Amino acid sequence: MVENNDDRHVAGLGESGLLRLLLPRLHGAEMLLGPGDDAAHIAAPGGSFVISIDTMVQDQDFRLRWQNGSVSTGYDVGWKSAAQNLSDINAMGAVATSAVLSLTLPAETPVVWVEEFADGFSAAVRDLRATECAVAGGDLSAGRELSVSTAVTGRLVSAAPILRSGARPGDVVTVCGRIGAAAAGFALLESSVSEDQMNSVEHGFVAGQHRPRPNLAAGPLAADRGATAMMDLSDGLRRDLPRLAESSGVAVALDAQRLEEVAAPDLFEWASGFGYEPEDFLLRAGEDFALLATFPTGTELPECFTPIGTIIGSAAGGMVLLDGRPLEASGWDHFSQGRSQGSEKRPD
Amino acid sequence: MVENNDDRHVAGLGESGLLRLLLPRLHGAEMLLGPGDDAAHIAAPGGSFVISIDTMVQDQDFRLRWQNGSVSTGYDVGWKSAAQNLSDINAMGAVATSAVLSLTLPAETPVVWVEEFADGFSAAVRDLRATECAVAGGDLSAGRELSVSTAVTGRLVSAAPILRSGARPGDVVTVCGRIGAAAAGFALLESSVSEDQMNSVEHGFVAGQHRPRPNLAAGPLAADRGATAMMDLSDGLRRDLPRLAESSGVAVALDAQRLEEVAAPDLFEWASGFGYEPEDFLLRAGEDFALLATFPTGTELPECFTPIGTIIGSAAGGMVLLDGRPLEASGWDHFSQGRSQGSEKRPD
Repeated sequence: MVENNDDRHVAGLGESGLLRLLLPRLHGAEMLLGPGDDAAHIAAPGGSFVISIDTMVQDQDFRLRWQNGSVSTGYDVGWKSAAQNLSDINAMGAVATSAVLSLTLPAETPVVWVEEFADGFSAAVRDLRATECAVAGGDLSAGRELSVSTAVTGRLVSAAPILRSGARPGDVVTVCGRIGAAAAGFALLESSVSEDQMNSVEHGFVAGQHRPRPNLAAGPLAADRGATAMMDLSDGLRRDLPRLAESSGVAVALDAQRLEEVAAPDLFEWASGFGYEPEDFLLRAGEDFALLATFPTGTELPECFTPIGTIIGSAAGGMVLLDGRPLEASGWDHFSQGRSQGSEKRPD
Repeated sequence: MVENNDDRHVAGLGESGLLRLLLPRLHGAEMLLGPGDDAAHIAAPGGSFVISIDTMVQDQDFRLRWQNGSVSTGYDVGWKSAAQNLSDINAMGAVATSAVLSLTLPAETPVVWVEEFADGFSAAVRDLRATECAVAGGDLSAGRELSVSTAVTGRLVSAAPILRSGARPGDVVTVCGRIGAAAAGFALLESSVSEDQMNSVEHGFVAGQHRPRPNLAAGPLAADRGATAMMDLSDGLRRDLPRLAESSGVAVALDAQRLEEVAAPDLFEWASGFGYEPEDFLLRAGEDFALLATFPTGTELPECFTPIGTIIGSAAGGMVLLDGRPLEASGWDHFSQGRSQGSEKRPD
């Protein structure tokens, strides 16, 4: 049968396939770095800058009401929108200089939700110490579903941004920040365990899902210490590490012994109790906005960076090994509506 | 009765009311210019920049299928998204340096629509001669309705951006660009007149709605010639001119004799034939992204700027007179779901 290309819908392509079609069709002035990293790098008179945009859509990226009866407040959504966009700038080794917001709101959205959104956004900028980030206000649109788009700019602290593509054989692979709280929080919110029934560890996990706390000092610090490649762990090691390996054209050997060191406190015990295989849960866990970075061997690592593996050689297309076996990439894909096995890779 | 504030929904407040609640709650680093103009002005090492964000939502800001049976292609929506965001930078007297896009797509969106979107966006950047604007690619989200968020940055050509608040008594009030084609196109698309039944003038109006052509050289040129205040006419003179007057604290006398000079060719004749009062139609017509600018009296105006009035004095709260009588503000409000009479003013 002849395939009729005009019948294709976006659901059939997946996010990565769609980006592969879309990005080559976007043209404008030359930029220093195009799509494929956490932010783009733009030449400008007086100095270059990085810029990133991201949208959170109701029932895709957050729920107003979860399976277990919990609600996401406007404060939660505002916080998370700020945190994940600031993380993209952090992951380039840059310091955020401005954020602009665009809110799309159904007519029946309570006004108090919008007020809390602004409070949560502002609180994240303050509490995560994005002290140079101006919050440049608001575009409002009406729509049938609630969504938030945020664009953030940043200034570089080093001569160039730290890309996904810079890892070299011999480099040490590190993580800054603990992984798994946000994913455990997600699992709890989508379970039948109500907030009343949760213990304090579980409450902490839910807080990690609603209000992640990327370490915004760590990205510029890593750049300063000579990190060779960096990205944030928005989709989990199992999905993001293969992206870094592919961009850099290298093979990564993960050290299974070290993984528990970067897990959120009590995560492994909780995951076992909740019916997950702890290491697998950890590898799939995104949304903590921890940093994944590589450094030349022998680098005195900045305090929060923990080694979890080594770049063992070059590999066209990239490769990640765990205990000597290839790690299958998997994780979240917006258009496949769920977590999928396979080679889907999202380059943003 | 005691009003319970917690019952308020956004539909009851209107866009301007909501922004008045939202903006004071957004906090971050200090900026050179906050919300209230077409873009924000941010200090940065090596030079300040302007930044703006805007979202277009299906069935609010565009229709995929119109009342008269016409369709908006992805190319149309991509073009318009680029044009209206580039216009915001132009209206500050700045030159666009980068654009970042975030698309929210229902699963059933045809892939060809997305490809055409990218083509239309890129074509607008090229054809409108935004030659310094890097198009920094794409974030994709799934959602139930199609929407496009675009953020654009710009570099200033003068020492400071041209604000809404700078008009002074004695200044001449001018418009660059012809007004009314986009609104006439909207009226036709929402009528029972099919594209087959339209004449060439009407086809031009529809093209003006789908693919507006702001003059991106004019903003920097006006800044260079000493414009005192500037904004783009996204919502029509009847709504935007009172905003400028209010921001500047001045009274404007419009010269009714000059209005037809800034109307799109054949607009007045067409409007009469279609049942509109031509001058009223012109005053309400937005979305051409013409520029509204004031200059000190005696300035040699840049070629495309046509005088339409004078700043006759100071006026706290602003005032616009037409033939000696106050012009009632009215225009589009997202949350009031239509064009409303009254004092609604949207400060973005």
